[in-house]
Amino acid sequence: MELGDGGAASRPRVDKEVDFANYFCTYGYLYHQKEMLSDRVRMDAYYNAVFDNAAVHIRDKVVLDVGTGSGILAIWCAQAGARKVYAVEATKMSDHARELVKANDVSDIVEVIHGSMEDVVLPEKVDVIISEWMGYFLLRESMFDSVICARDRWLKPDGMMYPSHARMWVAPIRSGLGEQKKNDFNSAMADWHSFVDETQAHYGVNMGVLEKPFHEEHEKYFLQTSLWNNVHPDQIVGSAALIKEIDCLTASVEEIRTVHAEFSSKIGADRTLVSGFAGWFDVHFRGNSKNPATRDVELTTAPSAEDCTHWGQQVFLLHPPIRANAGDVVGVRFVMSRAKQYHRLMDVEITTTVRTSGGKSLQPRSSKFFIE
Amino acid sequence: MELGDGGAASRPRVDKEVDFANYFCTYGYLYHQKEMLSDRVRMDAYYNAVFDNAAVHIRDKVVLDVGTGSGILAIWCAQAGARKVYAVEATKMSDHARELVKANDVSDIVEVIHGSMEDVVLPEKVDVIISEWMGYFLLRESMFDSVICARDRWLKPDGMMYPSHARMWVAPIRSGLGEQKKNDFNSAMADWHSFVDETQAHYGVNMGVLEKPFHEEHEKYFLQTSLWNNVHPDQIVGSAALIKEIDCLTASVEEIRTVHAEFSSKIGADRTLVSGFAGWFDVHFRGNSKNPATRDVELTTAPSAEDCTHWGQQVFLLHPPIRANAGDVVGVRFVMSRAKQYHRLMDVEITTTVRTSGGKSLQPRSSKFFIE
Repeated sequence: MELGDGGAASRPRVDKEVDFANYFCTYGYLYHQKEMLSDRVRMDAYYNAVFDNAAVHIRDKVVLDVGTGSGILAIWCAQAGARKVYAVEATKMSDHARELVKANDVSDIVEVIHGSMEDVVLPEKVDVIISEWMGYFLLRESMFDSVICARDRWLKPDGMMYPSHARMWVAPIRSGLGEQKKNDFNSAMADWHSFVDETQAHYGVNMGVLEKPFHEEHEKYFLQTSLWNNVHPDQIVGSAALIKEIDCLTASVEEIRTVHAEFSSKIGADRTLVSGFAGWFDVHFRGNSKNPATRDVELTTAPSAEDCTHWGQQVFLLHPPIRANAGDVVGVRFVMSRAKQYHRLMDVEITTTVRTSGGKSLQPRSSKFFIE
Repeated sequence: MELGDGGAASRPRVDKEVDFANYFCTYGYLYHQKEMLSDRVRMDAYYNAVFDNAAVHIRDKVVLDVGTGSGILAIWCAQAGARKVYAVEATKMSDHARELVKANDVSDIVEVIHGSMEDVVLPEKVDVIISEWMGYFLLRESMFDSVICARDRWLKPDGMMYPSHARMWVAPIRSGLGEQKKNDFNSAMADWHSFVDETQAHYGVNMGVLEKPFHEEHEKYFLQTSLWNNVHPDQIVGSAALIKEIDCLTASVEEIRTVHAEFSSKIGADRTLVSGFAGWFDVHFRGNSKNPATRDVELTTAPSAEDCTHWGQQVFLLHPPIRANAGDVVGVRFVMSRAKQYHRLMDVEITTTVRTSGGKSLQPRSSKFFIE
């Protein structure tokens, strides 16, 4: 026996130890920290948010950084004049954060705390909670749960969230990936059929009965798993829709557990293929109503010709694609919920209807996807 | 935040749930089962062992298959005339095994049992334990522990193990991978230095203090992690050494926990580079002393121009390589033990000395490796 490349675990029960093994371990690598620290869009947004609003939001304040990683946000807050920064990190990256804090001469301000946010006890309430909690398509990882927990326990009544708001977007796209994935799937199935024939011929065992589960496993892998991709803006073939808005100061776990949206997207080009949909997010740093930001900084992960992020976009491919013309309207019902087996992954269902500019309506179609 | 590609977990404490998430989950995919079932060397060896020795070892016997996976070995044993086969599988692959058993008309013989071998209770003792338990370089995965447990609990005093014997081999090789990995490492470090400069210039944070841990992390990844590789026999530059022999009927967990060997390898070619060492294994199906096999079948994963296996060989690369000439003797001290953080992975230490044919001795060198 031997393992192949590690696949995602799919198990009914998830305990804390398993969650650590599956999730947190990755953030223990400097390699991954460096990847995130090299994402200029991400870095510029947090840097500008902290320093351009330092006078109104950070100076002399108490700040909590949830999931500080290497500690960069905590160090910036100290440099921007915070009175005290609590920097909480669940992985052993906390050791490196502590070294970095010391090397940057902010040890008197920044206190690195190794532990789960859910377990940590702070000596005081805080004015600002800063966190870079966003996963692919915003909600993958479900890390915002820990930020909500921190907020409900440790944020002062007039405190603020950094970022303060988040939004999710979906747009129809064309993409060559759809055909490629379909071909990959077809060749995996052709390969399966030779395998069944050969196993019967050489080893006298009939494997045919496993065709259905093999088909299902590979359909899920090739056709139903959403893809990380940097979509070019030219690939967007219809209007983008806002499917979720989150006020980080008030949102509950209940509110982000499911994303349910219905929208219409008008197709912009003639004889185009709608290969599927791209999903992305943006966040804003606006302070709060009593104490708004001097500068409203936006961090967007929308398709862009210049500014790619490590988040890219999540792409959901339809099999087969939809043929459409300018003026056709694609109606979309989009439902995203947490995977039953593992709360940090997501299940998505997309139902599409097409109304042509000539007034014809095509049969609704439903597709299931997994954000792995 | 977002995860990169899943890295191997490295944690101090390992519980059963975590072990399941890290290890067993992979075997729940038909994709991986098919990969193993398509390994002709593996399949032919077990097939021949079972059917060529059916009359003496399998017919009318009670067999236990440890980690049956898709159930193929259990089905073969039934086809070869076993009276009863217990097929134990810890993952949900057991459902597919059950279907396969039914489709191949051996439901009256094969009983698929879903559970850990350590927990399973059988209604009787067995004559034969068959298992395909071998990991990369034989012992990775530490699955033989479960086979030992099964043997000590359920094998009759005169019972036999399938396979009955296992051996591990090491030989010096030349390989272009060494230079490639060294280049990858160097460019990761060059990249790190630009990153440190840019983070200081753009974001006012000095990351230099993390150079040492970053260097260590990447040295481990690029230079100290053994590689899966299909080595061509022509790459072997000196004599191969047998470093471990295991009698599956008597071996204890203690006996396989550490592999300690000292050997000399004579270099065969002039002006060659010893880039490192390749490790592989073979197993034999010999029955037992009272009831030897009609045909002694061998399954070898040695370097071969024709017969590659999914196990390949594990390659340990020296940095820098050793320059040697025909007649030089490389002395090797090889120590392999289980990783402290996770018992299914291995730590290796290789110490080399060189005595030239001219009688000169070079300074001993020690290198650490991780089998991940």
